[in-house]
Amino acid sequence: MRQEDPVATTTETDAMRRAIALSARALGATAPNPVVGCVILDTAGGIAGEGWHHTAGGPHAEVHALRAAGPAARGGTAVVTLEPCNHTGRTGPCAQALIEAGVARVVHAVADPSPAAAGGAATLRAAGVDVESGLLAAEAEAVNIAWLTSVRRGRPYVRWKYAATLDGRIAAADGTSRWITSEHSRADVHRLRAEADAVVVGSGTLRADDPQLAVRGIPGAVQPLRVVVDSRARTAPGARVLDDAAPTLVAVGKDADTSHLTGVDTVRLPAADGRPGLDVAALLAELHARGVRSVLLEGGPTLAGAFVAAGAVDTVVGYLAPALLGAGPGALGPAGISTIAQALRLDVTDVARLGPDLRVTAVPAALQEK
Amino acid sequence: MRQEDPVATTTETDAMRRAIALSARALGATAPNPVVGCVILDTAGGIAGEGWHHTAGGPHAEVHALRAAGPAARGGTAVVTLEPCNHTGRTGPCAQALIEAGVARVVHAVADPSPAAAGGAATLRAAGVDVESGLLAAEAEAVNIAWLTSVRRGRPYVRWKYAATLDGRIAAADGTSRWITSEHSRADVHRLRAEADAVVVGSGTLRADDPQLAVRGIPGAVQPLRVVVDSRARTAPGARVLDDAAPTLVAVGKDADTSHLTGVDTVRLPAADGRPGLDVAALLAELHARGVRSVLLEGGPTLAGAFVAAGAVDTVVGYLAPALLGAGPGALGPAGISTIAQALRLDVTDVARLGPDLRVTAVPAALQEK
Ligand SMILES: NC(=O)c1ccc[n+]([C@@H]2O[C@H](COP(=O)([O-])OP(=O)(O)OC[C@H]3O[C@@H](n4cnc5c(N)ncnc54)[C@H](OP(=O)(O)O)[C@@H]3O)[C@@H](O)[C@H]2O)c1
Ligand SMILES: NC(=O)c1ccc[n+]([C@@H]2O[C@H](COP(=O)([O-])OP(=O)(O)OC[C@H]3O[C@@H](n4cnc5c(N)ncnc54)[C@H](OP(=O)(O)O)[C@@H]3O)[C@@H](O)[C@H]2O)c1
Repeated sequence: MRQEDPVATTTETDAMRRAIALSARALGATAPNPVVGCVILDTAGGIAGEGWHHTAGGPHAEVHALRAAGPAARGGTAVVTLEPCNHTGRTGPCAQALIEAGVARVVHAVADPSPAAAGGAATLRAAGVDVESGLLAAEAEAVNIAWLTSVRRGRPYVRWKYAATLDGRIAAADGTSRWITSEHSRADVHRLRAEADAVVVGSGTLRADDPQLAVRGIPGAVQPLRVVVDSRARTAPGARVLDDAAPTLVAVGKDADTSHLTGVDTVRLPAADGRPGLDVAALLAELHARGVRSVLLEGGPTLAGAFVAAGAVDTVVGYLAPALLGAGPGALGPAGISTIAQALRLDVTDVARLGPDLRVTAVPAALQEK
Repeated sequence: MRQEDPVATTTETDAMRRAIALSARALGATAPNPVVGCVILDTAGGIAGEGWHHTAGGPHAEVHALRAAGPAARGGTAVVTLEPCNHTGRTGPCAQALIEAGVARVVHAVADPSPAAAGGAATLRAAGVDVESGLLAAEAEAVNIAWLTSVRRGRPYVRWKYAATLDGRIAAADGTSRWITSEHSRADVHRLRAEADAVVVGSGTLRADDPQLAVRGIPGAVQPLRVVVDSRARTAPGARVLDDAAPTLVAVGKDADTSHLTGVDTVRLPAADGRPGLDVAALLAELHARGVRSVLLEGGPTLAGAFVAAGAVDTVVGYLAPALLGAGPGALGPAGISTIAQALRLDVTDVARLGPDLRVTAVPAALQEK
């Protein structure tokens, strides 16, 4: 998606940076919608109002910002991270709201790729509004990458997180794994959970660790949907993942006996083709249908291997503890790769030190070109 | 080793920085001696001469520098990375040479920990020379860490290097491993080899990869001793490690049949206690006796596991390729660690990006305190 070089003022660039930061506040809270931020500049270039999209069904960013600006929007500029929408969903089209408010110019970062909402720029232009596209597009895309990717692929964006030793082990030989990484890394995982619409684990992890999978320590965070991939419905009725800290979905096989899971939201999915477990594409389709746009895959290695084999990992976030074990399960289980030429090559996009640990973020090399 | 805060001028600090850089030029070339650099300042504080220790048996750094300085050393200051030696080895004691040259002041970074050479500072003081110790001690120690550690422990310093995927695999399921990491990482390994006195591999790596283990691409590098740890003397006479690019030692078990290795330098070592293979401590003692002060352990995972189990890894250098395999051997084999509380905890001392790869350097947490 090459965008033309936008013609924008310094003030507009600063406003876009602010709009992007505002949009990021709602990561994990807007599904199935994107995160969007908006700043309204008055005719003198001062900030007249700002806002961001908080939650699906609530006002869009532009509406929040226009309300804050009031009459000062007239003749001014709307700086918005995503092309203003053109469709009447639960709220009216933003393009129309901007026209009615008398905005003279709209600068947006990223064009709206969703067929239903696109066309806002054309509507604005037809009404005589000056429209620029592409300002800080890369920065705005990065914040909205989950939603944009989900629109392009028609399935949720998947971030796979693991915590391993430097020699790639996620547990010791006897299965113990608390704690491999430090509290700094573990706090960061809660941030990733808060930014995701759903958190997914396999039945192996559930039985080994009985994790709660809720977001803790982040005030105001929207809890993600907790998803257990559990062909044989072996989730125990007392599992912590079934507490009321967040909603939970247990995905089971066609013939699983779910009689012990009364009151639990379950979904039956087809078996994977030629591999054990449930079909990953079917799981993602089900989550997409439920409005999930971003998934945090928390393992374990067996399920992560199935996701890699299905080409369904969009970002890898590895928390590496400076420790050696020499035995125990590896971070990633069988992924259908048998020789070095078939390795899934990635590009490192970020390396950070979190206390004693390293966090390495990487994306499949082929996926980086957009 | 807390050193008193040295009293030194800016000129002396700059000279010490220069001396440390000079010393590093000879890493891998001076065994069994340390690397040492020296800068002579004249009475006006100008650089009168400089030098570094090139090779064992050759002149010490101070002698090189005094020769370069000539009469300008008189009344001047010698800035040297290690306490000037006090013993008459293959060359005369440097403390005496400095006194004879009329140097008025000696500033050194690190005290000499070896019983044979120590005492230089006292000799200098007795002759009326002003002596300061500890200037840039941490920087100087870092460059000389292999030699200093070998003196303290009475065995060579061991740097374990491995190249793995982000999920900790050093080869694919079918054994292929060329290449996991990029040319940038592989070039860096040649630098590590050049800085080591010996490069060690297990018989498994020899049979799998038939590596040459010589330094390539670094002009002027001194080739390390290539060491194969091969209980049953299964090294083939045509193995590349036996070519004439560098010296080679094959360590074999007490009863191994070495009749096919005529003309090859072999040494018989005792078996490990309660583990397969040769005794790691005996191997290191043999190498120490041969003048080896720094070892680059190049694997594979089985031998590396034995070194970790023996507490014989002083630094870990992991080259991490951004790639996933999901199967294949892990970077480190069994090291006698069965539960998470026994994990060998490390401290990360450096993280670097080498082309697409990451290089993570770490040291055992307990070893960092000196
Ligand atoms: N350090 C970390 O980051 C981290 C994260 C998570 C887990 N862990 C550790 O990982 C270990 C558990 O790992 P694990 O590999 O046994 O468990 P897992 O990957 O969580 O679960 C694997 C199970 O998921 C079910 N499943 C359903 N659909 C699947 C599919 N398409 N592909 C694969 N599996 C599918 C299968 O069981 P059914 O046939 O019963 O459905 C399978 O046996 C524990 O020791 C845990 O502590 C570590
Ligand atoms: N990516 C990397 O960084 C890297 C580096 C090296 C190797 N590799 C890969 O590693 C694989 C080979 O690994 P490996 O683990 O089989 O080989 P290895 O560790 O090189 O050799 C293991 C063998 O060394 C001998 N040995 C002697 N003393 C020992 C002791 N104290 N402890 C353990 N072993 C001792 C044993 O054979 P005997 O009983 O016959 O003496 C043992 O089977 C190859 O695929 C190679 O490509 C990768």
